[in-house]
Amino acid sequence: MASSQQQSGASRFDPTFTQNVIDAMGPDVTPRNRVVFTALFKHLHDFAREVELTIDEWKAGMEFLDEVGHMYYTSDKKRHEMHRISDITGLESLVDEIAHKHASESGAAPTSSSILGPFWSPNAPFRDNGASIIESPHEGLVTKMHGRVIDLNTGKGIPGAVFDIWQASSNGKYDFQDPEKQVPNNLRGKFRCNEKGEYWFYCLRPTAYSLPTDGPSFALLNLLGRHPMRPAHIHLMISAPGYKQVVTQIFPSDDPWLTTDTVFAVKNDLVVDFVPLEGDPKATRELKFDAVLAPQGTPGDSGSAVSKI
Amino acid sequence: MASSQQQSGASRFDPTFTQNVIDAMGPDVTPRNRVVFTALFKHLHDFAREVELTIDEWKAGMEFLDEVGHMYYTSDKKRHEMHRISDITGLESLVDEIAHKHASESGAAPTSSSILGPFWSPNAPFRDNGASIIESPHEGLVTKMHGRVIDLNTGKGIPGAVFDIWQASSNGKYDFQDPEKQVPNNLRGKFRCNEKGEYWFYCLRPTAYSLPTDGPSFALLNLLGRHPMRPAHIHLMISAPGYKQVVTQIFPSDDPWLTTDTVFAVKNDLVVDFVPLEGDPKATRELKFDAVLAPQGTPGDSGSAVSKI
Repeated sequence: MASSQQQSGASRFDPTFTQNVIDAMGPDVTPRNRVVFTALFKHLHDFAREVELTIDEWKAGMEFLDEVGHMYYTSDKKRHEMHRISDITGLESLVDEIAHKHASESGAAPTSSSILGPFWSPNAPFRDNGASIIESPHEGLVTKMHGRVIDLNTGKGIPGAVFDIWQASSNGKYDFQDPEKQVPNNLRGKFRCNEKGEYWFYCLRPTAYSLPTDGPSFALLNLLGRHPMRPAHIHLMISAPGYKQVVTQIFPSDDPWLTTDTVFAVKNDLVVDFVPLEGDPKATRELKFDAVLAPQGTPGDSGSAVSKI
Repeated sequence: MASSQQQSGASRFDPTFTQNVIDAMGPDVTPRNRVVFTALFKHLHDFAREVELTIDEWKAGMEFLDEVGHMYYTSDKKRHEMHRISDITGLESLVDEIAHKHASESGAAPTSSSILGPFWSPNAPFRDNGASIIESPHEGLVTKMHGRVIDLNTGKGIPGAVFDIWQASSNGKYDFQDPEKQVPNNLRGKFRCNEKGEYWFYCLRPTAYSLPTDGPSFALLNLLGRHPMRPAHIHLMISAPGYKQVVTQIFPSDDPWLTTDTVFAVKNDLVVDFVPLEGDPKATRELKFDAVLAPQGTPGDSGSAVSKI
């Protein structure tokens, strides 16, 4: 923050302006709000001064945000365009990193978190280990996924841990979006780990898909000369009593969009290998994935999930 | 910008993250957009890192902006709440300063600009010098306002300059907002200066008023522990062929809200004295105000106006 002050002071514009706006805050503002808004005003003003923001650019920015906010309401809050803009600018992934940094600092790290998305369902059924979450026709590669949920400190499996998975079908759509081709709870399921902390089931190798190619978020991507693709991914929510929940996504290592995910959600430990599988009549691919959970009380965040487009 | 990079790099978060988001811009982005978005991403991310923005705060920010944008549309674009938020945070006044800085740097300064507001009318009638713009009952102090419109370089009056004035009545409302008590064009008028560049007419000593005390902007003011008051002001738009137009506001020097204008629009040369007037049966106050216009071609901005709440 010192450097922000220096920037403001060193500019050819009124050096007292930003401090005046900050000082306008009353005495009863909470300490946290004072910190947040002080930094917000400094960065907002420094941004405008540094680029010498024009009147037309300022107006364009307001109109853009108006349209973004309005779309949320006109879509019955189903299309959260502000959330998507926040993702395209990297803000959500950054907030996610900030929220989950503390635990990693303690040395060994639990599985990295990633963003939840709007497609998680509280109603996904429990299925038995060994079952398939695939209930509707598809054109994907059936994969046997298996592994353990283990304790960050002991490295031992966590009996009874719940492994909740959801994914889009090979057409890039989730069951919610595709009621004519997918039955409810297609490609969703919860699995309870055995006494060794092991889980195993059948799913699809995931398919890359595009963010919507209309609306303000796509206009912004065009302005930035960027593509709208997300790499293929599988969503996971892993929890066990006494442990911090992990909400995350995993990505195939050979996905062409891996390094240019348009929402910047990929992390190294979330990149996984789908390998050819022989001898299993139900699947042609195999994915082994161990998830690491930190016990409650491990220093750091509460593990709350970031919801996501 | 160097310091922003340093801040990002020195933080305990991924030092490459922000540069990755910047580098995602494609090769065809315009040079100006590249400058603007590079600074925007740096400041947005540095803000989040500096305050360690929480997931709940990030969500609250999105919901706030959604509501702000939506209000614009649900009010038939009559209530531009994003504009008002932009004013409360000081951004509009800053953009106005940036836009009009160049001319001032040339040495002698034209009259400072301020914000236009939503209440200017293209249909205000021309009136003769010496006329009154007051057409409806009021409880204000009638003021004889007069002065000259002069050339920045020569100091001479500009014959035929047009002096356009509009103001709220003593109840704090403009004619548009108050059709039952005010006839159309009450407290509006355009005056053409005489051959010496002089104008003179009757108006009201202006009255302070409050921004709306509902909606997201008022919620933000409450969060910041701030009042919603604007100091009393008179709006002016002054133009002459061959000169840069000035859009501005003037403020009585004894207004109690002068130093805490909730939109930060007051500038020193716009503070004026309303003095007692004797011997004029039509008025009890006098205001002398000279406006200084810069010739077209004076280095600096185009003089375009910032519209305003």
